[in-house]
Amino acid sequence: MAEHNIDLPEVSGLTIGILGGTGDQGRGLARRFALAGHPVLIGSRSAERAEEAARSLSVRGAENAVVATEADIVIVAVPWDGHRALLESLRDELDGKIVVDCVNPLGFDKRGAYALPVEEGSAAQQAAAVLTGSRVVAAFHHVSAVLLLDPAVERIDLDVLVLGDDREATDTVRALAARIPGFRGVYGGRLRNAHQVEALTANLISINRRYKAHAGLRITDV
Amino acid sequence: MAEHNIDLPEVSGLTIGILGGTGDQGRGLARRFALAGHPVLIGSRSAERAEEAARSLSVRGAENAVVATEADIVIVAVPWDGHRALLESLRDELDGKIVVDCVNPLGFDKRGAYALPVEEGSAAQQAAAVLTGSRVVAAFHHVSAVLLLDPAVERIDLDVLVLGDDREATDTVRALAARIPGFRGVYGGRLRNAHQVEALTANLISINRRYKAHAGLRITDV
Repeated sequence: MAEHNIDLPEVSGLTIGILGGTGDQGRGLARRFALAGHPVLIGSRSAERAEEAARSLSVRGAENAVVATEADIVIVAVPWDGHRALLESLRDELDGKIVVDCVNPLGFDKRGAYALPVEEGSAAQQAAAVLTGSRVVAAFHHVSAVLLLDPAVERIDLDVLVLGDDREATDTVRALAARIPGFRGVYGGRLRNAHQVEALTANLISINRRYKAHAGLRITDV
Repeated sequence: MAEHNIDLPEVSGLTIGILGGTGDQGRGLARRFALAGHPVLIGSRSAERAEEAARSLSVRGAENAVVATEADIVIVAVPWDGHRALLESLRDELDGKIVVDCVNPLGFDKRGAYALPVEEGSAAQQAAAVLTGSRVVAAFHHVSAVLLLDPAVERIDLDVLVLGDDREATDTVRALAARIPGFRGVYGGRLRNAHQVEALTANLISINRRYKAHAGLRITDV
């Protein structure tokens, strides 16, 4: 695994911004990146809500637009419902940056979770269509917020599939994933193949139900 | 892992039929199930071609219709192109049986593999729509034919995601998967969530290219 990550760029000084950082997934990632030594900014529509969530994690909170401006790398962890509108509102702030989309467009009914159709193919492709000046990468879809937030869990053995069409950007996000103990960042293909990675979260939810687990993926032979 | 499989049904005596058994995936599975002690029948449109492929694997070969009639469990490993037509022609033979679909509807261009849209949602759902009298299960999508066919490879550490709406049928196929050394059969959700499992094969192909690997999945925490 050390060899796996040997050629990745140095990312240790980077400030991580998390849009929708007050949700479970956003707070969980914020917590782990802060533990790894990164300056972390969590964003929300309301600065107050962001600051409140940030305090409990010992990170900073601010309005989404401030986070998008100040962070070096921006993770999008908003609910699918508000995904497009939020990104449209931050086009200028996100220009030129690496934007990491980890949104899973899912529906839920009494039989469990299922993938929603997305006009652009996937949440990540929607982000790329809106943020034409940004470098959009898809990653962190399958990470259990419960484990990320659990103080008793020091290490999470998991592969983060990192998808994108810009090699330098995907390598940077792979390096970022590897900052969390137990995580590897594994290149997972181009953005056009993001839909199934997002949708697979529905299967992991089924697995969690059946096995009372917090299931994740490892890629074998890599 | 032993505990994982402890409640699964006994499948050791079952005859496995493989439609499209002359392709790499079909021959690979045939080889492994024969090594595990199962009577195996591989099918093709031409009895001659089936018999020829079968000889090299020390199993039996026959026309697809004969295989569908004689086997206890039938695996569908045909190319996506001929999927619907073949199943339509075997509706009667497959009535009442567990039919395991492992077909990945993929396209290829110079940028690699990508998922094809499927009217019914997935190959497995198409099989279920055609074979209304069968118990359709989706499984074995991510198994490398190269590894299955390699005589130097005795064990393949891999989780087979098994999807379906019939608990007894998915448990039977999970048990079948576990007959191959290193494999686990992990319940992966309902058939309506089969698309992303099939499509994920495109991502594994991207991973194989990048890492010079034969990538597969392990589900963590299960």
